[in-house]
Amino acid sequence: MNGCIETDLSSRAQPIVDALRSSGRSVVTAESCTGGLVAAVLSHAESASECLHGGFVVYTKAQKHAALGVEAGLMQLHGAVNGEVARQMAEGALRRSPATVAVSVTGVLGPNPDEDGNAPGLVYLGLAEAGKPTLTVRHDFGKVDPDLIRKETVSRALEMLLGAAQGRK
Amino acid sequence: MNGCIETDLSSRAQPIVDALRSSGRSVVTAESCTGGLVAAVLSHAESASECLHGGFVVYTKAQKHAALGVEAGLMQLHGAVNGEVARQMAEGALRRSPATVAVSVTGVLGPNPDEDGNAPGLVYLGLAEAGKPTLTVRHDFGKVDPDLIRKETVSRALEMLLGAAQGRK
Repeated sequence: MNGCIETDLSSRAQPIVDALRSSGRSVVTAESCTGGLVAAVLSHAESASECLHGGFVVYTKAQKHAALGVEAGLMQLHGAVNGEVARQMAEGALRRSPATVAVSVTGVLGPNPDEDGNAPGLVYLGLAEAGKPTLTVRHDFGKVDPDLIRKETVSRALEMLLGAAQGRK
Repeated sequence: MNGCIETDLSSRAQPIVDALRSSGRSVVTAESCTGGLVAAVLSHAESASECLHGGFVVYTKAQKHAALGVEAGLMQLHGAVNGEVARQMAEGALRRSPATVAVSVTGVLGPNPDEDGNAPGLVYLGLAEAGKPTLTVRHDFGKVDPDLIRKETVSRALEMLLGAAQGRK
């Protein structure tokens, strides 16, 4: 399944890697519901090793806190699927990496709501870059096939990364 | 490609997840050349979310240092593919996770040697568990198809994890 997504989206990786390299940028990911797929897609591009440092796969709240420093109290109060968690994931990844750009993903693939009652299809992405304000974006893909949500989410994350790699304003 | 590995090996995940859960253990991975595949395979098991916290994908030496605390000087002197790096990766992952077991992978898939001249097929695995000495294992798969090395490596990591989940002596 993931393999298909990786293959389908692999053509999207090369322009990102090219733009990162030519601008001297490098990237790390922080992924929950996509389980490292964004990093995996990027890894297939030629010369990815020159600008892809790796990624953090953080399924549980406790792992989001331990690996990325996301505030435990925030997640206890508001769950793990919101813009503030996406922001803290991206900024935490940037702190724990030599990368200059970090993209984060937290959401609910479904088919069931998450433990805090967030509906399937709700996804937040974050983009942190040294010296720039962190962006967060909310997507609501609705209660569709989890594989479709996963693919759309990876696709949107790649879109954000391309913008950053090309030097977003 | 990875998708095939994930599918081929997914039947191996359930006994591990079952044993981890029934013994109250939980797991995190620290992966270099396998790029998060060990965690991805585990994630497909039923109830994986109850014992799989996530993983660290650490391609570059700088990321191994920043995310897991692997000594920079060690990697500068001896490269990133050796038992000591595997040990520090597993122990670093354990420190930065609520998991009780961490498995680590560092190796060279090829087809070319790594930047330090390590030959394709050379892989080190580590297994860290709270209160137990960390295990490291060296494999030399030889200069064969990188996909085969990847699959064999994931398979050996799963084997080590099953041992830990069932309570190795």
